[in-house]
This record gives sequence, structure tokens and C-alpha cells, in this order.
Amino acid sequence: MTPFCAVVDWGTTSFRLWVLCADGTVLAERTSHEGMLQAGSNGFQATLEAHLVALEVDAGVPVVICGMAGSRQGWREARYVETPVDVRAIVDCAVPVPAAGREIRILPGIAQRDPAEPEVLRGEETQLLGIIDALPADALVCLPGTHSKWIELVDGKVARFSTYLSGELYALLLNHSILRLAIDESARVSPQVPEFLDAVTTAIANPAQIANQLFSIRSSQLLGYSDRNGAAAALSGSVIGLELAGVMSRHGPLADVHLVAKGELAEPYKCALKAAGASVHLHDADTAVRKGLLFAASTFWPVEEGRQRRHAHPG
Amino acid sequence: MTPFCAVVDWGTTSFRLWVLCADGTVLAERTSHEGMLQAGSNGFQATLEAHLVALEVDAGVPVVICGMAGSRQGWREARYVETPVDVRAIVDCAVPVPAAGREIRILPGIAQRDPAEPEVLRGEETQLLGIIDALPADALVCLPGTHSKWIELVDGKVARFSTYLSGELYALLLNHSILRLAIDESARVSPQVPEFLDAVTTAIANPAQIANQLFSIRSSQLLGYSDRNGAAAALSGSVIGLELAGVMSRHGPLADVHLVAKGELAEPYKCALKAAGASVHLHDADTAVRKGLLFAASTFWPVEEGRQRRHAHPG
Repeated sequence: MTPFCAVVDWGTTSFRLWVLCADGTVLAERTSHEGMLQAGSNGFQATLEAHLVALEVDAGVPVVICGMAGSRQGWREARYVETPVDVRAIVDCAVPVPAAGREIRILPGIAQRDPAEPEVLRGEETQLLGIIDALPADALVCLPGTHSKWIELVDGKVARFSTYLSGELYALLLNHSILRLAIDESARVSPQVPEFLDAVTTAIANPAQIANQLFSIRSSQLLGYSDRNGAAAALSGSVIGLELAGVMSRHGPLADVHLVAKGELAEPYKCALKAAGASVHLHDADTAVRKGLLFAASTFWPVEEGRQRRHAHPG
Repeated sequence: MTPFCAVVDWGTTSFRLWVLCADGTVLAERTSHEGMLQAGSNGFQATLEAHLVALEVDAGVPVVICGMAGSRQGWREARYVETPVDVRAIVDCAVPVPAAGREIRILPGIAQRDPAEPEVLRGEETQLLGIIDALPADALVCLPGTHSKWIELVDGKVARFSTYLSGELYALLLNHSILRLAIDESARVSPQVPEFLDAVTTAIANPAQIANQLFSIRSSQLLGYSDRNGAAAALSGSVIGLELAGVMSRHGPLADVHLVAKGELAEPYKCALKAAGASVHLHDADTAVRKGLLFAASTFWPVEEGRQRRHAHPG
């Protein structure tokens, strides 16, 4: 099958590329750690082209990119669109990368210019674009990660959003704090162990005590009340519970939550959200971002034009 | 003047030694980074003796130690005494270090053996011992640090205590998180800048939002609402405010608080506590631990006996 476009989710520390047919069929896929930080040294164009050459994608195939490649420290700045905004507007505000040897466009992020609650996101807007047709006009969308984003849709528009640095907090505490002595390096978080939901509900019930709750993961081991097996789950549950406490302090009790997550985050968040009383609608994050990027590509290069372009540049 | 004893506050990453007269006069002082972790490799006895030799302290001078040197991973385990306990009991439960070539005793920490709120401390008990005569029988004592301890005295006894990993959280976020991009390396926290108390009161008012409040230090800069100058103060205020929110969720509104702190922590905690409505009574942490150790030494070796001992071992 003929490639229609290549799409890239280019984060701070990760790079993910798919080569797609016009109907969304995935022809090829590449992932690497060449995120913005590394590509900033090696060159964004060189990084991108190396992957495309490896997949034998010719110069007539255009590329759409979302994420940190569009930040000020990235390849080419794609300025934030501003709330309230229909997420489809990011397509209109995409920025072309000139003289790249092929058609390339970078999608912008979204900013909430409120001095009391300043917020920015890049990448999550494209995941949202990918599922927007499946969402009701009013919805609460949770996109967990290093910096978890919670987006409030009102009348089909991104009305407000907020960020919780839960994933970063988890990683810092796991790898660098006193809690590393309490947790096996090989630990994987299982939301099935009781320590996970215990920690979620404790953090929701009393988020003010989080700095004490976290320390108790260590002290309960020192005094023989717990072992190392449940410690990673207790840490994860504490951090996710704190995030949910924050969301509930803003939105009140949780009802329907659209969870856009991939593999290892989907299950813990789903369990925690259910424990907090939410009805969870799960969307795969990779599928979502790919669909969002394809939607943008189809708008930029309507399929007929796309075909002509490739005929004109056989590569 | 003749040295009566040497006393050591031996933490996880720090070593502090004073040579004292019987009346508490400081004859000499040494500080280094040879905490438990480093001394564990180099040898506790070799580390201690190197400092004593450098100060020409002869083998007839006894030594009292508090802190992590008494932990299971330390020099010799001094098992926790348990709450509720008169802090003076730590003197009775000190552990001698045999065959060390001089008289050495290590003071124990305190444990709260409550599965719902397991707690341990080592080192802070000796600071408390140093100020116990200046405290009312019922008091709330705050000992800020990497792991801040809050001790509740009831009828003159340590009834309960709790730990908040505030200092560790601050250091991790400052040095390893996205916030490092928002904060100058040379930043020193000044509680005088408005960002400090703003962050304290915000965290106290809504601790559930702390993971969002922390991220906003970065996003408010990205959107031009704040600059780097106040960012370290905002981070410090957020973390201290969260700790105070935790304490108030446990104890209710703050009244008299005995703050046992040294230099750079004293001022921020004092300002934050006042903003939270507390009446602050400040005690210097170094003086407190030295007095606690001297009290122990004076009990182990009543001054007359101490003098005889030194005559018997001219060194």
C-alpha cells in the first residue's frame, strides 16, 4: 500500500513515528529516545530523516508532528492556541517547517492564559483531537503521564485544563528519595495488591498528609508492619490519589471520566478512578495521537492532492 | 580548660563533633560530610578517632553520639525507645561501644509502634532532650529538615510524633524535576519575597492541589506571569505550606509552636508558622543537640568521676 503521510509524536524524551495510509492503516512504526532534548543536539531534521530513510519513505510523503518539537526549545515554535478553543483549531494554526526537503507541519499546544491558573500543554491536544468525535460536548478528560493533564470540555470546546506532576513525583521518589530503600528496583506497580487502593483512598481522604503518608512507606517497613512487595504500589497509589484529590477539589465528585492512557498507566488510573467513584471510559493514547495527527494530515493534504504530490516526487 | 567529653551528632550524610567542658563551654568543633553512609565504608571508629586526634583529644575523654550511627546500618544499633516516653529515658537506654579504646555511648532514637501511623526518629530526640527543661509539659515541637519531625508532648512525655519529607521533596524538585528549568541554581530562599508566603497560604488553603501548584511555578513563567527570581521561594513555600496543612489536619489550628531549627531553615519556617497563625518559640538546633548530648554525658560520667578517669588515663 502507498504511504499517505508520516506522523510523529515528539516528546521531551521520546520520539514516535508512524507511516500511515490515508485510511489510517499503519505501514511502519519507529520509537526511540531521541526526544526534544537529544534531537536538540543532533538536529531535528537529521533525526527525522534518519528514521524516514530507514523506512524507505520518499521525499514526497509529508509529515505532521505534535509535541515538544513545537516548543520554543524545539525545532520550530508553534505558538499555543488559547482556551477556550475547539481542539480542531490546532490544525489551522499548524506551522510549516520551510526548506526541510519535504512538506512538514508542526501542531501547536494549548495555553490557558489565566494568571491565577496558568497552564500549558503540548501533545495532549493531539490525543484529544484523535478522540474528540467520540466524546460528548461536555466531558472531563484525564491524560495521565509525567505531567498529567485534566481537560474540561464545555460545549465541545477546551474550556479549562490543569496539570499535576504526578508521574515526575513518582519517578523522583522512587529513584532518588529515602523511599528507594523501601522499594525493589524491579518493582512493577500492580493495582491489584491491596496497598495500591489503600494508598489511593488514604490520599483522597486526607491529601494534606501526603508528605507524611509517603514517609510512612519507609517507617512501616522499619517497624515491621509491611514488606517491600507492596511499596511501589503504595507509592503509586499515594501519588495518583493525591492527583484525584486535587481534581475533586476542583470539579467535585467524579462522574464520567474519559481516560486517555497507554499500557502501564491505564490499569492503575482506571482502578484509582473507579475507587474514587468515577465511571471510566478508556481510550488508547497511542491510537488517539495517531488519529489526531492523521486528521491534521488529511486536512492539510486532501487525499487526491496527496496522491498527485507523490506522483510528482517519485523520490 | 580540661575537656570533659566529646559529643557527636552523626546523621545520614553529616558528622558534627564538639569537645566540651563540663559546663558546656565549647573547646573545639569539627564538621564534615562523613555521615553514616560514608563512615559505613571508611569505618566509624577510624572516622571518629581521626577527628579526635586532629583535636588532640586524649583517650581518657569519653564520647556520646546521637543520630544514625545508632541505626541498624550504623556503627552499633541502639534500639528505639517507644512512645509514650519521657525523652530523658534515652539516656538510660544508651548503648556502649565496646573495645573502642575509649568510653563511647550511642543514644537511641524513638519509635511510634502504631501500624496506622508508624514513625521513627533518630537525632531529634537528643535535640528535644536539650530543650526539654525550657518546654511546658504540653507542647508541640517542630524540627524541620530533610524529614521534618513534629513531636507532641503531653504531660512532659513524647506522646506522638509525625514525619513530613518536606526537605527531601524540596531538594528533589529543585534539582531533578521540570522546576529546575524555572529556578536559578544560585537561588537562595528568602521568606521576604511575596512568592514565599503566597505559596504557603495557597498550600494551606488547598493542599489537595499541591501537584498542580508545584507545576504552576513552571507554567506561570512560560506564560510570562512570573520570573525566575521568586521561583525558589515559591517552591519552598509550597512544600512548607503543605507540611503545615498536614500538621493542622492532625492538630487543628496552631497555637504555640516550639521551632527547633538551625540557620537557613529557621527564618522560612518561622515566617510560615506565623502566617499559619502560630506563636513561634525559636530554639537553635545545634545548641539543643549539644545540650542534650552534654546532659547524657553528665549522667553517664558525673563530673567527679570524669575527672578521675582522665587522671587515670593521661593519654
